[in-house]
Amino acid sequence: YGKNTIKFLRLHREGKKHFAKEVEVCAHLRLTSPQEYLEGNNSLVIPTDTIKNIVLVLAQKNGVPSLEQFAIDICNHFMTTFCQVAYVKTYVQEVPWQRLHEDGVPHIHSFICVPDGIRFCEAEQCRNGPLIVFAGIKDLKLMKTTQSGFEGFYKNEHTTLPERHDRILCGELFCKWSYGECKDFDFNCIWKKIHECILEAFAGPPDCGEYSPSYQKTINCIQMLVLSRVSQVQVIEVVLNNTFYNVVDMKNLGLTNDKEVLVPVEAPYGSCACTLGRKKFFEA
Amino acid sequence: YGKNTIKFLRLHREGKKHFAKEVEVCAHLRLTSPQEYLEGNNSLVIPTDTIKNIVLVLAQKNGVPSLEQFAIDICNHFMTTFCQVAYVKTYVQEVPWQRLHEDGVPHIHSFICVPDGIRFCEAEQCRNGPLIVFAGIKDLKLMKTTQSGFEGFYKNEHTTLPERHDRILCGELFCKWSYGECKDFDFNCIWKKIHECILEAFAGPPDCGEYSPSYQKTINCIQMLVLSRVSQVQVIEVVLNNTFYNVVDMKNLGLTNDKEVLVPVEAPYGSCACTLGRKKFFEA
Amino acid sequence: YGKNTIKFLRLHREGKKHFAKEVEVCAHLRLTSPQEYLEGNNSLVIPTDTIKNIVLVLAQKNGVPSLEQFAIDICNHFMTTFCQVAYVKTYVQEVPWQRLHEDGVPHIHSFICVPDGIRFCEAEQCRNGPLIVFAGIKDLKLMKTTQSGFEGFYKNEHTTLPERHDRILCGELFCKWSYGECKDFDFNCIWKKIHECILEAFAGPPDCGEYSPSYQKTINCIQMLVLSRVSQVQVIEVVLNNTFYNVVDMKNLGLTNDKEVLVPVEAPYGSCACTLGRKKFFEA
Amino acid sequence: YGKNTIKFLRLHREGKKHFAKEVEVCAHLRLTSPQEYLEGNNSLVIPTDTIKNIVLVLAQKNGVPSLEQFAIDICNHFMTTFCQVAYVKTYVQEVPWQRLHEDGVPHIHSFICVPDGIRFCEAEQCRNGPLIVFAGIKDLKLMKTTQSGFEGFYKNEHTTLPERHDRILCGELFCKWSYGECKDFDFNCIWKKIHECILEAFAGPPDCGEYSPSYQKTINCIQMLVLSRVSQVQVIEVVLNNTFYNVVDMKNLGLTNDKEVLVPVEAPYGSCACTLGRKKFFEA
Repeated sequence: YGKNTIKFLRLHREGKKHFAKEVEVCAHLRLTSPQEYLEGNNSLVIPTDTIKNIVLVLAQKNGVPSLEQFAIDICNHFMTTFCQVAYVKTYVQEVPWQRLHEDGVPHIHSFICVPDGIRFCEAEQCRNGPLIVFAGIKDLKLMKTTQSGFEGFYKNEHTTLPERHDRILCGELFCKWSYGECKDFDFNCIWKKIHECILEAFAGPPDCGEYSPSYQKTINCIQMLVLSRVSQVQVIEVVLNNTFYNVVDMKNLGLTNDKEVLVPVEAPYGSCACTLGRKKFFEA
Repeated sequence: YGKNTIKFLRLHREGKKHFAKEVEVCAHLRLTSPQEYLEGNNSLVIPTDTIKNIVLVLAQKNGVPSLEQFAIDICNHFMTTFCQVAYVKTYVQEVPWQRLHEDGVPHIHSFICVPDGIRFCEAEQCRNGPLIVFAGIKDLKLMKTTQSGFEGFYKNEHTTLPERHDRILCGELFCKWSYGECKDFDFNCIWKKIHECILEAFAGPPDCGEYSPSYQKTINCIQMLVLSRVSQVQVIEVVLNNTFYNVVDMKNLGLTNDKEVLVPVEAPYGSCACTLGRKKFFEA
Repeated sequence: YGKNTIKFLRLHREGKKHFAKEVEVCAHLRLTSPQEYLEGNNSLVIPTDTIKNIVLVLAQKNGVPSLEQFAIDICNHFMTTFCQVAYVKTYVQEVPWQRLHEDGVPHIHSFICVPDGIRFCEAEQCRNGPLIVFAGIKDLKLMKTTQSGFEGFYKNEHTTLPERHDRILCGELFCKWSYGECKDFDFNCIWKKIHECILEAFAGPPDCGEYSPSYQKTINCIQMLVLSRVSQVQVIEVVLNNTFYNVVDMKNLGLTNDKEVLVPVEAPYGSCACTLGRKKFFEA
Repeated sequence: YGKNTIKFLRLHREGKKHFAKEVEVCAHLRLTSPQEYLEGNNSLVIPTDTIKNIVLVLAQKNGVPSLEQFAIDICNHFMTTFCQVAYVKTYVQEVPWQRLHEDGVPHIHSFICVPDGIRFCEAEQCRNGPLIVFAGIKDLKLMKTTQSGFEGFYKNEHTTLPERHDRILCGELFCKWSYGECKDFDFNCIWKKIHECILEAFAGPPDCGEYSPSYQKTINCIQMLVLSRVSQVQVIEVVLNNTFYNVVDMKNLGLTNDKEVLVPVEAPYGSCACTLGRKKFFEA
């Protein structure tokens, strides 16, 4: 049980310059005894209202230097304060405020919401177990208008899809990775580096791109690049929900349409997921 | 990988009377070899477009006698047709069309959408493993305006919640249960019976209700009633996302408010989950 | 300016039996002077926080006998209390709680959310002008699986739609009507009667239905029936956002599909609106 | 009647460099005769499917140099082609794809979705009337963490809001303006200029900001700046839906909170709207 969508804005001021971090936190606990379920005995139950208070108190005391550090702080607090807690899991998601710029000059206290991918993290811990930290990005929508195809696939009597060597590749990416021993990491810096890797592996070189033979291969390229460049990442999961774009057939309308007008097909949509680790490998 | 939100309407006619079932299907596969991820070799990949075609063909051939039977049909088809499929998972959700009635008379071909809880099911199978079937209901919003409290809970310096013995209990329920050996089940009949158990355990007797000392206990009551009444259910998971209602303090406004005007608090919201099986027990 | 989504639950108790009405209110004002815009002079501005307080106070004092009466109460309060208010408009929408029944027996204090069409109303008044009341229903999804067609339409070189005399008619209805002199109306009773008219005109007789030659004609039938049966209605507006269902062509898949499997096309969707009054007529 | 959410992607290629514009179009017509409503006579009805085809054909033939030009093209087409059309209205909204950059280098064919405000436009025309063009931005979320207050407002017995001279100003902006005679305008350039005005008027100078005594005054500042800098704008409407941030009272938790931790209040939310023209003035 726990509390979801605990939202708050944490302000930090350096002189007249303001730094704003708004987050949404979910914190869930499992207790050592199920007596509240079986007997209706609430004596060990920490109310979700108290959970909310603790999150806000930690925000005031520690600030939010990084989402990951804040999630770690929450886990540590519950594990060290309440002996009846057997397991704690916390999720922190950032509201994507960016400092406003006027003619390239950063504004001291104004911000704009730019949701081009949402940063999040998770931390979880069992009593007597290690603290495990995940970080990730979600709702990141990317599109390549060429250098993508899908050919040589398995065919039978239910196949109607034609082979294509020049199609639109468009999708919403979800990436989540785990850290190993995570002391003294610069989580903000690592996150930014991984974000760059994802864009680079998706798009390829700016002057020519790189051919993608399938969504699956593109996912693998992203994972391989992250694992090769960022040593702190142990395992990375990528999910790509893709939108097809159909070239509109305009023959009946007396026109030729050389892939100039395309229509998105939003339902049904394909989905493709893979989890890749440093030694073990499995897909789902 | 797979295809999500494959939507279709299956019509069945008996004379002039029409029966309509609209569903949304997700079907996901894992192949025996990861070569399409590693090498970009698509030769074993069944396109998601083909997956969609197969779902529609099965709908035409078999109809949708129950969501569960349709999910089973899809799993069986992929396992028996494609030797490269290592695992198949399918999810089926119903659009809640109900036959329209005029003055109590059922209409032969008109329907109204009544989303008071959405029926869904899942089926999954690993090659050489058993076919596992789940069913459930989601988005079921219920409210009790009394016979609910929360007292005797754990308190410390971060506790600000007062004890309450007469509060609103309001939440959105998610229930999912698994069947054991599931041959020859009347899935529609069982689902209806479980739906009744949920409402009965939540609300208590119609003339007086039943006191709930916590969300946790209410969840446990639902699970116990389902397990006691429906022998086909092996394990049942219940998640309750609850909305608090605060009694508005009107002293400053010169009025007394005897729990007559309350304001819902939608964020943050509490959440409470428990999974209960016939022999083993664990909560999450 | 004003306050939107003021949500509250109003409880009424008769002995052990509870009556619950949860609503969402928006209340907007226009002041006689624009000085707060031009000069930043707030001296006449009623804070939106005060607007919220007033709505809650009225709920406590008057209850919510009907949405319409509550909207009228709000308008009256602002017009009689604040001479700087030039115009007030209020919108009230109901959360569709229905009393729970167990084996046909109504429960004294348990409710289920059944969103099969949302009831709402509006009231507006200019200073020295009449109080105008509207009521309506929205998000009402209806479907007929036959007795609908679309033929004889205008054709040119951009027409690719075939004529059809047996198609699915499915859409989401929005209806809004205005009352004339509205003293002493039983708003709850009238609303229920209009709701029945809408379903009846949409579906036709339960044993055979009624053929619809177009969405436009169905809208007109609804309007005509309401105006003929409910004398208090002066003008009625109906908007129908329709979802097409395409019969899946299964020839390539070796099957004949006699309108048994259809796929909904949710974007783009057609929309059709008409406003019909007792004397004047216009469409939009 | 008409067709909503006609979505398409228009690709334009210059050598290896791709330009992508994805839009969503709604196109609505009113015919000169209501016979399809009254009599079910469809002979003048242009099917919404044909409307969709026409939009796609115009996209192929003319491209989408600007949203406004495309909306004008649609209006012109319907007015000149169909004498039974009495009125046409079209709405065009852009999917906010931005060219991807790697280390500052623009990518030739990769794009990222950045929804920091959505550009849209409308065009409408009555037969024998002028073509009127509107443009706008919506879903633009901005925040100032200081230089905002609300004081000196009207008070009575329902007032509980304290005066504040240093609060968060946060809201979602909707701006829509109309053009006068709109031949030969560079709509893309004007839109960009207005976008800059909005940000500048909201935030004030980057090094110090500008004090806002109310949402109303901030709206007025935006309007005044746009009207003074952009001569093509005739009338500008601004709606600001604001989110309050409450400073969390931590006295009970043994802490002082100097506006460091704040909680957003999303419902109810205030709303404030004003329409300002070159000569006439009114607020709503």
